[in-house]
Amino acid sequence: MTAASPTRRALCAGILAAGFAPPAPAQRTGAPVRAIVFDALGTLFDTAATVAALDRLVPGRGADLADHWRLKQLEYSWLAAAADQWVPLAEITRRALDHAMAATGTRLTDADIAALLASYARLPAFPDVKPALAALGSTPLAILSASGPTLLTALLAANGLTGTIGHILSTEAARTYKPSPRAYALAERALGVPRATILLVSTNGFDVWGAARYGFRTAWVRRPAAGRPGVYDRLRGGAETLQPSPDHILTSLADLPALLRLPS
Amino acid sequence: MTAASPTRRALCAGILAAGFAPPAPAQRTGAPVRAIVFDALGTLFDTAATVAALDRLVPGRGADLADHWRLKQLEYSWLAAAADQWVPLAEITRRALDHAMAATGTRLTDADIAALLASYARLPAFPDVKPALAALGSTPLAILSASGPTLLTALLAANGLTGTIGHILSTEAARTYKPSPRAYALAERALGVPRATILLVSTNGFDVWGAARYGFRTAWVRRPAAGRPGVYDRLRGGAETLQPSPDHILTSLADLPALLRLPS
Repeated sequence: MTAASPTRRALCAGILAAGFAPPAPAQRTGAPVRAIVFDALGTLFDTAATVAALDRLVPGRGADLADHWRLKQLEYSWLAAAADQWVPLAEITRRALDHAMAATGTRLTDADIAALLASYARLPAFPDVKPALAALGSTPLAILSASGPTLLTALLAANGLTGTIGHILSTEAARTYKPSPRAYALAERALGVPRATILLVSTNGFDVWGAARYGFRTAWVRRPAAGRPGVYDRLRGGAETLQPSPDHILTSLADLPALLRLPS
Repeated sequence: MTAASPTRRALCAGILAAGFAPPAPAQRTGAPVRAIVFDALGTLFDTAATVAALDRLVPGRGADLADHWRLKQLEYSWLAAAADQWVPLAEITRRALDHAMAATGTRLTDADIAALLASYARLPAFPDVKPALAALGSTPLAILSASGPTLLTALLAANGLTGTIGHILSTEAARTYKPSPRAYALAERALGVPRATILLVSTNGFDVWGAARYGFRTAWVRRPAAGRPGVYDRLRGGAETLQPSPDHILTSLADLPALLRLPS
């Protein structure tokens, strides 16, 4: 390449500097973790069954449809939060499915869609959830999810977990989605302890990033891959490169009790 | 399937209702369009050259890298806006590239990246831009872009368009990104006319959606496909299904002057 012109250097300077800037630190204090807030679907509850169900409805294309659906669902929830417009999860979910069906050339009947969505209330908890919750003893716990309280309560009940988590919080109460600060504030308010002593636990990199920016401490759960590498895993399965990085990276919730015993 | 239980029906009712709800109308008045705000990259200026440049650097994988880079750049900008955290475009662009390189197994040198980013200042305007701007006469015009004023001014100059658009606005002035209402407010304030008389013109469906929710009128520009169907086009090339839909769908900016003459 030729020598960079002054204009060219000016245009590049900020970009290159940003590339090598040290990670922006979250607001961390070193205070011990006093409370934990969990993401729900994909973190506590295994959604793999819905992919299998989709694959029965559109044989051979279930994974592709599921990937596209989930990507657009996330996208639309972020757009709604960024636009400061309340769009209920039911509408976002349906619009995302419409987009995914159009893009993948698939078609589900309304009865199939209703049955599929109803099956969410019966998703199994990951095997590490029950023992981890028991081992956390009296630590105040919360769920913070885009799903509504009806579904969250049903999921806990279906897995024999009723009463194990004290605060069942849906971001719909703040009429927004993660990573809006108004979403994380719901958990901070319910738990009643300083945000720097709250640990957010999620498999979603964007959730971990948003919580860290809000001032929570963070544990990113990297569950073993579901064995279906597709566009979703390529775009969302890896580490987010936005800073800050997670405070902790776990492969199982079994590692959580040890985090509470870490020296401050 | 078996008959739906009451719980199942409750879980589905909102979802099904949302699926069949009529489109939510934007705040439209029927007043004539008095000003136009344009998105920049991809709408006024053709970014295809950067894909070709990437393909020279990573032969055969340029389109895949470009798709992934652009998807993550958009994603990170929405997350920053949703989290109400200011992350400069230079940083978002670089972090998105880091993610894209990791996901696609490619590696660009810092010199290559600098040259590539510098080349953005020389992107060509689409052929319909200059005649359309001339035909719009004295209509107040603005650019509203995530890019900074230095790049936007350079792009106009490189294409002989200096002075054709009165207001060169970067969303960095509001320390956010579209579709934040604070981004669209920059254009409303600069143009000084009621938002319902401002037409936003963009190739980005999410931008059209955000502007409509803000209260602008909207024209979604569907430029002929670039001939490289990939994950970007599948996820972002089609119509967004979030409501409201665009007021107008154009295949060329040549159709713009006629929109100003539509009966109110």
